Amino acid sequence: MQVTFLGTSSGVPTLNRNVSAMVLKPPQRSELWLFDCGEGTQHQFIRSNLKLSQIKKIFITHMHGDHIYGLPGLLASIGLAGSSSGIELYGPAPLKNFIDSCLYNSSSRLAYSLKFHRVENAANNKEILFEDSELEVKTAPLKHRIPSFAYRVNQKTRPGRFDIEKAKLKGIPPGPVYADLQRGEEVRLEDGRIFSGKEFCGPPRPGVSMVYCTDTVYTESAIEISRKADLLIHESTYSYKETEMAYERGHSTATMAAQIAAKANVDQLILTHLSPRYTPGNQTCPNDLLNEAKAIFPNTQLAKDFLQIDLNKS
Amino acid sequence: MQVTFLGTSSGVPTLNRNVSAMVLKPPQRSELWLFDCGEGTQHQFIRSNLKLSQIKKIFITHMHGDHIYGLPGLLASIGLAGSSSGIELYGPAPLKNFIDSCLYNSSSRLAYSLKFHRVENAANNKEILFEDSELEVKTAPLKHRIPSFAYRVNQKTRPGRFDIEKAKLKGIPPGPVYADLQRGEEVRLEDGRIFSGKEFCGPPRPGVSMVYCTDTVYTESAIEISRKADLLIHESTYSYKETEMAYERGHSTATMAAQIAAKANVDQLILTHLSPRYTPGNQTCPNDLLNEAKAIFPNTQLAKDFLQIDLNKS
Repeated sequence: MQVTFLGTSSGVPTLNRNVSAMVLKPPQRSELWLFDCGEGTQHQFIRSNLKLSQIKKIFITHMHGDHIYGLPGLLASIGLAGSSSGIELYGPAPLKNFIDSCLYNSSSRLAYSLKFHRVENAANNKEILFEDSELEVKTAPLKHRIPSFAYRVNQKTRPGRFDIEKAKLKGIPPGPVYADLQRGEEVRLEDGRIFSGKEFCGPPRPGVSMVYCTDTVYTESAIEISRKADLLIHESTYSYKETEMAYERGHSTATMAAQIAAKANVDQLILTHLSPRYTPGNQTCPNDLLNEAKAIFPNTQLAKDFLQIDLNKS
Repeated sequence: MQVTFLGTSSGVPTLNRNVSAMVLKPPQRSELWLFDCGEGTQHQFIRSNLKLSQIKKIFITHMHGDHIYGLPGLLASIGLAGSSSGIELYGPAPLKNFIDSCLYNSSSRLAYSLKFHRVENAANNKEILFEDSELEVKTAPLKHRIPSFAYRVNQKTRPGRFDIEKAKLKGIPPGPVYADLQRGEEVRLEDGRIFSGKEFCGPPRPGVSMVYCTDTVYTESAIEISRKADLLIHESTYSYKETEMAYERGHSTATMAAQIAAKANVDQLILTHLSPRYTPGNQTCPNDLLNEAKAIFPNTQLAKDFLQIDLNKS
């Protein structure tokens, strides 16, 4: 699982940080999942090693402009490129209206299908939002000025590694039977011998997990959805000095993000959605936010645009 | 009058050219007028020497996404900066719906006033769209797949230069009377002498004029609104080799843009809105479009992002 940050600023773009967007590349698939889509996200794709045409799913946390204003242009450009087989959109209820109205008013017709999925029910009833044989996505309500939702992507537990050398030593002839054994099945060879896949497979391998948590002030549901995740990406709009403003505006301080990470017992924390006030050289700068979080949760790093993280279970 | 290009690509952004936007700085005013606002226009402001907070008027040529998708973010960012006293928006009828719906769906309230002006009537009836003591704006219908409008900004003729030395030589005491003379008025001094401003003023100075013409295929109304303009900015999506496609999609070739410039007898032509297919290194590149136009209208140049042109009458 690979994560690429395309926008890490809060509210407005700066010279070095665009507004929110993050891309997840699920393991062993040539597809991309986009989380939030601030204005200029399609421009960030051009500057990255990622392809717009590979986007299959888009998850929107909430309807503020710095998380959605890049959607109409991104969807239109994917349409002009003509290579999409369809996109599934997950987000709050007004998302469909927003997209429909933008496309209608600009006389745009997409040459591929858009499917909308409201996330409120899955979030409030703790239902699984999406699931296939390898991955599942969960969502949880956050605490912001408008409805806002966290997303968690879990890679499912995979079968143990297949010991091909052991199978060869037993004189099992290579062929489709190896795939059956790899899945742990019992097979009967032509010579009558019977083998169980289990004797050639290592222990099941747990999958990796990533949580994307923005925009929100400190909230228990963020802890709940983040439990034992390999990676928690959490907003950190402010430093602890602006705690009052954080509560007022429904945003987190670096301290709050670190507390969520610590209480949820995650493996690593990445801070994103930094207020543009923290430019290097100002009284408080992004590194101060990093140090503030590290004092509580040491395995923390700062997001920056185009930062790419590979998540693999050791 | 100063013109700055912020986006010169057609349809989709490229690494070097953003989608359509152009900024006009009227003479001797600390305000900016924006023409079209493709996605990422606010990002281009950050990279330029122009300030978002100085935008007073926005003119939209037509409702295609590459000309309007930057508006919601730009208007929201101006609101967050908190320094606007209001913006006047000129464009086709659906513009208000588009903005209202984007702001509503993203729970955005602007802390300044937005005033919408539909341009259809002024364009079809050849009425003046806007006028004050120094400037006037006209508009004309173009020929595109959806309603599209050209804009012309005329600086009005200014009084001749005031010869301050001549007034001093006549023994006229400095004071408010100089301003009266400068406006060409007749004044009576305390000593009883009477002077006419005319004898201290040079000949009236004609103003400069700029026409912004996109998106459109070749059309007579583009010639009409461009007559004798100092600067014609005309779209040039395609080379003459794609003439058929140009008619099909309602766009101009470089040849068409040059023919408009020649027939309207403008002073200079700038080509913009280039198809991303013409990247340097491809079979046809932007310089080929430039040469194609120059063969018909020699005083032509290519727009590029951040190109800045000062228009002054000699």
